Amino acid sequence: MAMPKASQPFPRSEYLRRLTAVKSEMKRREIEVLVVTTPANITYLSGYTSKSGYAPQGLIVSLADEEPTFITRRMDGPAAIHQMFIDRGNVISYPEALIANSERDGYDAIIEFIFDVGLGHKGIGIEAKFLPASTVEKFKSCAAQARIVDCTDAVSWIRGLKSDLEIALMREAAAISDAGMLKANDVIRADVREPDAAAEIIATLVHGANGKPGTDVASFYLCATPRISTCHIRWTEDVFQKGSQINLELSGVRHGYTSPLMRTFSLGKPSDHIRRLHEGEVAGLEAALAAAKTGTTCSDVAVAFNTTLKKHGFEKTSRCGYAVGIDWTEPTASLKEGDVTVLKPNMTFHLMLGNWIDEDVGYVISETFRVTDAGGEPFTKLPRELFVI
Amino acid sequence: MAMPKASQPFPRSEYLRRLTAVKSEMKRREIEVLVVTTPANITYLSGYTSKSGYAPQGLIVSLADEEPTFITRRMDGPAAIHQMFIDRGNVISYPEALIANSERDGYDAIIEFIFDVGLGHKGIGIEAKFLPASTVEKFKSCAAQARIVDCTDAVSWIRGLKSDLEIALMREAAAISDAGMLKANDVIRADVREPDAAAEIIATLVHGANGKPGTDVASFYLCATPRISTCHIRWTEDVFQKGSQINLELSGVRHGYTSPLMRTFSLGKPSDHIRRLHEGEVAGLEAALAAAKTGTTCSDVAVAFNTTLKKHGFEKTSRCGYAVGIDWTEPTASLKEGDVTVLKPNMTFHLMLGNWIDEDVGYVISETFRVTDAGGEPFTKLPRELFVI
Repeated sequence: MAMPKASQPFPRSEYLRRLTAVKSEMKRREIEVLVVTTPANITYLSGYTSKSGYAPQGLIVSLADEEPTFITRRMDGPAAIHQMFIDRGNVISYPEALIANSERDGYDAIIEFIFDVGLGHKGIGIEAKFLPASTVEKFKSCAAQARIVDCTDAVSWIRGLKSDLEIALMREAAAISDAGMLKANDVIRADVREPDAAAEIIATLVHGANGKPGTDVASFYLCATPRISTCHIRWTEDVFQKGSQINLELSGVRHGYTSPLMRTFSLGKPSDHIRRLHEGEVAGLEAALAAAKTGTTCSDVAVAFNTTLKKHGFEKTSRCGYAVGIDWTEPTASLKEGDVTVLKPNMTFHLMLGNWIDEDVGYVISETFRVTDAGGEPFTKLPRELFVI
Repeated sequence: MAMPKASQPFPRSEYLRRLTAVKSEMKRREIEVLVVTTPANITYLSGYTSKSGYAPQGLIVSLADEEPTFITRRMDGPAAIHQMFIDRGNVISYPEALIANSERDGYDAIIEFIFDVGLGHKGIGIEAKFLPASTVEKFKSCAAQARIVDCTDAVSWIRGLKSDLEIALMREAAAISDAGMLKANDVIRADVREPDAAAEIIATLVHGANGKPGTDVASFYLCATPRISTCHIRWTEDVFQKGSQINLELSGVRHGYTSPLMRTFSLGKPSDHIRRLHEGEVAGLEAALAAAKTGTTCSDVAVAFNTTLKKHGFEKTSRCGYAVGIDWTEPTASLKEGDVTVLKPNMTFHLMLGNWIDEDVGYVISETFRVTDAGGEPFTKLPRELFVI
């Protein structure tokens, strides 16, 4: 029996719209074929979320074809047939013998395909920054008659601008993020082990919200006293203590789309210092959202935040956010001073106001929002509180 | 207040032993300094498990110094001070301004450090395969007087051979994997949504076993009818049906160390075909474990499995396993015909017998084991059953 198609998170017309935008960029860059290897970009152009990206794979977008072709290892072919909107004939599997093979790998299969369809001497775009140096070299030497063009981030910039259908999925992910934070507020207690709280919160993120389950487990960071100046520790084996502070960062996931959220919890009364930092950050957050209107720049948003925070006597040295969507961070626009990216409606950002000031001072709050003509519109509904338990 | 040190999963002597092995390999390759950038290798040499690897970072091992130096972005410095066994003076943070900066990034900070300590004209090893091509170029051009040597997998091969202390952690991870599978056996039922089962199983992996919590969430794949020929789908929004088959792959994690495990579940009586495949795979598994003695090769183990499975009328085209440890797969030895890696005591493998035969036939079973003089010794205690629910 042949593998059936999964129900798609988007209609075919949505994928074709995205591909039209990519092909238009390909024409601008004077390339005939684009080899998309970044998992998030493959998800964007096909609906595929299976986690096969640790082995060579490529979605080949050609100006000559309406649908792209996916080249993947044999064992991942059925998942591609199942999940991708494309015809099953456009999923090509290479043999398992190319795995853990020092002579030839899946990129050779991709290059051979490009030659087979007669494009081996054309302009070929690759996402060079996310490929091993030896693979870039392979493209250059195997396709010596071709013009190899570095198209790193070309698709990422296009997916920075969300459709209403994508915004709807990000709202679903945000509702799951909210549910995760509310669960945290229920389970973080003195004498509870960090992993036991984490287990319940993560389970909530998978169960989902409003009948929409989480479709993946995104990054999850629970940094509690004495680690409140850290930001990327999962959790430890410690037990929460009375007086502990807990900084939490998490996200629900819907078909690849994330809506990250950060909040700070305090077991007992927080110090005046943290309370003042919280007030400054919330004021900064509101100023940043107000500034995030169509036509302003990423830099303007950062300035609005930084200026407001400074008025409250604090400073944040790291950027105050980044473009967000499939698989969390997009490697494109940053909410930082000097980033002159102009904001357009339905660009989405994680306004990430984690502020790790000193080795014993750290505080986190964030919102994921979309740009509108009236300013940044957050996806989550959680109060902007320092949660005191 | 300064960041305190976390309790270490290993004594200092264990890290120094590992570093001695790395330095000895460095001498063999005639390099004075090694820039370790792969997260799993950094964990191995320092105890660091914080998830900062998406930004440039490097653990600098120098023949001249007992301890390595870690160079990381400002916001990740405190986690390194907390988790790494090294002196806090050996953690160097680069400014946040190097993040999302197209002119200069953290690798420039690493290269500058190497010059600052007077090693800029020496033999410098890098893990080139896992670095962007532009970064390899940067090393070559900035350190033009140095000899840049590709040391990809040098540390990975060293960590392939586990100490008894590491084996103990992998056994703890395996006990968690067992607990996860037993939970699966409890919660997989007809009319239950896949994510609701996944949530409970993942929560179990985080709660842990025998008082030892999971320290991270590893990859998790639940591929149920009609997707039993897929292997890397997390789960879907479907509800389990009477007659469904469920292929599960998961792992507990202890301080980075994994012990992956796969089992197949059937809601009701499995078909004779799947039952026969199960019997062939279990026979092959036992043959592979018996073959995995000190002094034989990876290829011998694969031949033992493949020959046995063939006697049962089946074939598996993908490799039957790979070296395993920190962060799951090690990019070194494979249990496949032709891999002549000689087995040594305390090498560890995931004997991964997932077999996706046709678009509607797939079956999974696996064991994580260590090599001993008497054969492969599995870490988990779970029966080698096709679990019928």
